[in-house]
Amino acid sequence: MVKKFVYGTPFETEAVVKEIPSSEGNPDYGTFSTENGFSFTTKLADDDMVFGLGEANRGINKRGFLYISDCADDPNHVESKTSLYAAHNFIIISGKTHVGFFFDYPGTLRFDIGYTTSDTMTVSCENADLYVYMITGDSDLDIVKQFRGIIGRSYIAPKFAFGYGQSRWGYKTEDDFRTVVKKYRENHVPLDMVYMDIDYMQDYKDFTVNEERFPDFEGFVQDMKKEKIHLVPIIDAGVKVEEGYDIYEEGCEKGYFCRREDGSYFEATVWPGWTHFPDVLNADARKWFGDKYDVLVSKGIDAFWNDMNEPSIFYSQEGLADFKETAKKYAEGDPEVPHYMVGGKLQALANNHEDYKRFYHNVNGEQVRHDKVHNLFGYNMTRSAGEAFERISPDKRILMFSRSSYIGMHRYGGIWTGDNCSWWSHILLNLKMMPSLNMCGFLYTGADLGGFGANTTRDLLLRWLALGVFTPLMRNHAALGTREQEPYQFEHIEDFRNVIGVRYRLVPYLYSEYMKAALNDDMYFKPLAFVYPDDKLARNTEDQLMIGNEIMIAPVYTQNAIGRYVYLPEEMMFVKFLGNGNMFQEVLPKGIHYVEVALNEVPLFIRKGCAIPVADFAESVPDIKEESIRMVGYEGASYERYTDDGVSRI
Amino acid sequence: MVKKFVYGTPFETEAVVKEIPSSEGNPDYGTFSTENGFSFTTKLADDDMVFGLGEANRGINKRGFLYISDCADDPNHVESKTSLYAAHNFIIISGKTHVGFFFDYPGTLRFDIGYTTSDTMTVSCENADLYVYMITGDSDLDIVKQFRGIIGRSYIAPKFAFGYGQSRWGYKTEDDFRTVVKKYRENHVPLDMVYMDIDYMQDYKDFTVNEERFPDFEGFVQDMKKEKIHLVPIIDAGVKVEEGYDIYEEGCEKGYFCRREDGSYFEATVWPGWTHFPDVLNADARKWFGDKYDVLVSKGIDAFWNDMNEPSIFYSQEGLADFKETAKKYAEGDPEVPHYMVGGKLQALANNHEDYKRFYHNVNGEQVRHDKVHNLFGYNMTRSAGEAFERISPDKRILMFSRSSYIGMHRYGGIWTGDNCSWWSHILLNLKMMPSLNMCGFLYTGADLGGFGANTTRDLLLRWLALGVFTPLMRNHAALGTREQEPYQFEHIEDFRNVIGVRYRLVPYLYSEYMKAALNDDMYFKPLAFVYPDDKLARNTEDQLMIGNEIMIAPVYTQNAIGRYVYLPEEMMFVKFLGNGNMFQEVLPKGIHYVEVALNEVPLFIRKGCAIPVADFAESVPDIKEESIRMVGYEGASYERYTDDGVSRI
Repeated sequence: MVKKFVYGTPFETEAVVKEIPSSEGNPDYGTFSTENGFSFTTKLADDDMVFGLGEANRGINKRGFLYISDCADDPNHVESKTSLYAAHNFIIISGKTHVGFFFDYPGTLRFDIGYTTSDTMTVSCENADLYVYMITGDSDLDIVKQFRGIIGRSYIAPKFAFGYGQSRWGYKTEDDFRTVVKKYRENHVPLDMVYMDIDYMQDYKDFTVNEERFPDFEGFVQDMKKEKIHLVPIIDAGVKVEEGYDIYEEGCEKGYFCRREDGSYFEATVWPGWTHFPDVLNADARKWFGDKYDVLVSKGIDAFWNDMNEPSIFYSQEGLADFKETAKKYAEGDPEVPHYMVGGKLQALANNHEDYKRFYHNVNGEQVRHDKVHNLFGYNMTRSAGEAFERISPDKRILMFSRSSYIGMHRYGGIWTGDNCSWWSHILLNLKMMPSLNMCGFLYTGADLGGFGANTTRDLLLRWLALGVFTPLMRNHAALGTREQEPYQFEHIEDFRNVIGVRYRLVPYLYSEYMKAALNDDMYFKPLAFVYPDDKLARNTEDQLMIGNEIMIAPVYTQNAIGRYVYLPEEMMFVKFLGNGNMFQEVLPKGIHYVEVALNEVPLFIRKGCAIPVADFAESVPDIKEESIRMVGYEGASYERYTDDGVSRI
Repeated sequence: MVKKFVYGTPFETEAVVKEIPSSEGNPDYGTFSTENGFSFTTKLADDDMVFGLGEANRGINKRGFLYISDCADDPNHVESKTSLYAAHNFIIISGKTHVGFFFDYPGTLRFDIGYTTSDTMTVSCENADLYVYMITGDSDLDIVKQFRGIIGRSYIAPKFAFGYGQSRWGYKTEDDFRTVVKKYRENHVPLDMVYMDIDYMQDYKDFTVNEERFPDFEGFVQDMKKEKIHLVPIIDAGVKVEEGYDIYEEGCEKGYFCRREDGSYFEATVWPGWTHFPDVLNADARKWFGDKYDVLVSKGIDAFWNDMNEPSIFYSQEGLADFKETAKKYAEGDPEVPHYMVGGKLQALANNHEDYKRFYHNVNGEQVRHDKVHNLFGYNMTRSAGEAFERISPDKRILMFSRSSYIGMHRYGGIWTGDNCSWWSHILLNLKMMPSLNMCGFLYTGADLGGFGANTTRDLLLRWLALGVFTPLMRNHAALGTREQEPYQFEHIEDFRNVIGVRYRLVPYLYSEYMKAALNDDMYFKPLAFVYPDDKLARNTEDQLMIGNEIMIAPVYTQNAIGRYVYLPEEMMFVKFLGNGNMFQEVLPKGIHYVEVALNEVPLFIRKGCAIPVADFAESVPDIKEESIRMVGYEGASYERYTDDGVSRI
């Protein structure tokens, strides 16, 4: 049962697509207040768990911390960070009863979930202008399904996107990319995608390709296609201010960029230098910007990632002027301006909330200050492309995912979880975010395997890949200046071939489960708590996940560990894809176990009475041989398989 | 068997106190090279583990990462950090054979332990001037004991230091401190120490007390003594440059500060503003500086912590001049100086290695550039006080610990592990560092419980305290600007009373085990690998520790967890100190278990056939009633107890 409550004059985010009549008064749960902004407060019982929040820090159970929905380009994802790149304002309070809330509010929203006081949750925001959806149901999963039902069907990526991709900020030339592909192919490590970070562009200008580095881009794209490789260029939010650059000139002419209060276009520095932001909250501008993706689609590109769309700001004209003034005073010896004030001003330049108050969107003719709708930018940038693809490429699915997002964007693309680090703790954070993202509609998701920032190690990468085998988006990505982390940079490449190869052996199953989740508003990854709600230990297990109805995963996420503890809430078959390509299978009873898993192995657990289709090793998704598929699991079990051709039982 | 090898002309660090004749040639293990500096390279077998390095990042088994001994004031202890505050250059390679190495080198030393290539370890430094001690033995523990035998007996803290202490950067006035004590006492939460961070001083001048904030300091110290509270003032490395300040004037007059090459005193900014560093590597200066501690000892103080002694530098005169020049050019619009260069220069000001090349120590009349002996500064600052206490207070032990350290300092004081954060991962890092520190001689150790940086949560603090119950140094400490984390800031103070109370119930046992470890060159905390070397799972268990010969600890370190997995390498008695003050006891068989532990409980495991003395709850160490002690554990077991009066069997 979904009820909708209206507070003040909400901004229409279009996160919810189903028409729901408004209810009078407040939800009959906790306390709602519209004094001093909006707040919802409720007591939490000792055993209550709180789920949701999608891309957020900490555990699957969100209790005991503070989360602030305020899309932020902040790459230092330490445990104390309260905001990441996304705003996914859906939560479930799960205990004796089950209730879900979606706070449809596009500005900054605080979730104090037992942080200030252990037994109290408070959700609050500055302006009491929002929709609150309250969902009651029989179970946590029931609530998720109802929620997913009102926000619309999740994006479905093309099949090749279920292969594995290599990325690195630092590949510049056609030759760099060809080398990556060559090394993968000659080492027989599977690969379907190579990502093109910002250096493929001409001066970081959206929808351009550097002609010196790519003298025949279309030919290059075709060559890669022959190698069964899809190139995935990045698109950034900011449009370079440069006379003669068509996107810039058109946008100015049509009035499609975000403006200051005085009507001038807002200027912020991002990778290209000074940029304007396309006003993706303006339907006309959104259409215009989205259509630009055709510049690359028409060159054979069928995959994109959208970045810097919080939007990230290095500094604005206003911020820079302020800094210059401070630097000048310091240089002149002003005693009121010590050196650390210069540093403070400099640090405050990037992603400063003051800047978000300096520009406006034109929404149906009304000027809306950016900070009030800040969390919708990435969503609408991706929506612009998603809507355009329906026009440009109606018959072919295009791969697309975004860094920043809001619920609603799940209909247009996936997300990756942004700039993580080569830290072991980020393997576990990756795992924990996955089911929360599914609750909020985001199914095509994954983290930068091996870690984006900091230097990786061989063992970290292998262990992370063994989790990545199961995430719909499986991408190895690293930052400029960090240790190179393509598999061929390390000794014993056969270990990488094997671990990544397991992904390809599982694509028939994983793709089917993805389609099932998308088409049935279901979750691809579920917490154990959703599947075994009456099993106390299962309910509290946060380092294992269920996929579909058949398997449980329990990756190793500790350096130098020879294996890990795993809890089986029921009898399961432990399957280990071994380093030599064989499979180890053993039925384990319900209970706690310690399973040994070597660095070159991938473990999974098949639920009692179930079986899954497993193919032979292949080097690309189109190379996976249907006829090689055999069932692995319990004798006599069948499986309902979703393919692009329909549903069959095997 | 300890062998000593001499390379070049080593600096005499005095880490090793036992006379050992030098052996010819190289150790017969791995490859030693003195071309392009010094390096030692050896292959590691798949199952080899590497232990040691004391205060270092990552696991107990140090394989798979890079560690750089280069004492650094860097509070961001993320997983990718290679240097912390200490330099403890002792390692053990443990596999089919056991071998230990101590690289007695006071400059920057790199340990690449399977980081670049998984099966290769390389230890290297710039100058081939060092002692290498190679230790062979029957077991890892045997090697540790031999090593401890050559570096001299570990510091023994006074008994009150085995109580619990409260600290916070931000307590300023006598009233602030009295309030802390009052709230502890009226809530009946045990307390023996209150720490005085930098604000007790007059303008951050060492060995001064702000007279406005403490009009009668001696009276205040006496009042606290009556409350059974020991005040623990901080002493910083830098001496404020201020005319009329006696320490400054004396130091200048006697030539006891570090000098530039031109003979002028080196100036660096730290908390007091411009400071000089006392030349603690000069024996005369060390004696002079150490004697200054008597200024506070004579006022009744019997406890100190030494800080900022890497030494930490905010900026030097030279660094500031360089920054000013850059800021000036930027303000003037120099096109060669973009704004981020100003930022880069600013960031590079603090703890810049260039500064460590700008000053010199006078060692027996010879000028030694600081960077060559950088890792000895904290050691010798603490040694200055330790040697002075032998003169000032020969009959009474004084509590002292330091932030920066080198092996050798363990004879004079303990260490705390520096500026950690309120992160759950730092509970585990705390645990993992403890046995490594013991290997290197540091027994009186602990971390900032609840976390120094970032905002704590009630559950984090409780779980961390439940580990802190077992660390010799048990201190709650937090940074200025973070959430207040004294127990009385949170609901249900009885839970804190109980958890901290368990420490006091265990003091008879823990103090005895500390004395045993110190007097017998043994480890207080041992990795399971040292006790059960033939048990593969025990050998690979890094989140449990052995204490003495009687107990194993397995703290909970995960938010929202209801308990944890624990591996028992043999039958043990699971003892849980419950929230109501009672004890739960259950014998568990060898094997893996999941034990439930509530937030207000403290778990431990008693080894088969053992028992430990447990006293009744007390609010301070002197209040612990001998007559309340009873044996807990296996029926009929006895225990060899060390007290200040000697050894007895109970």
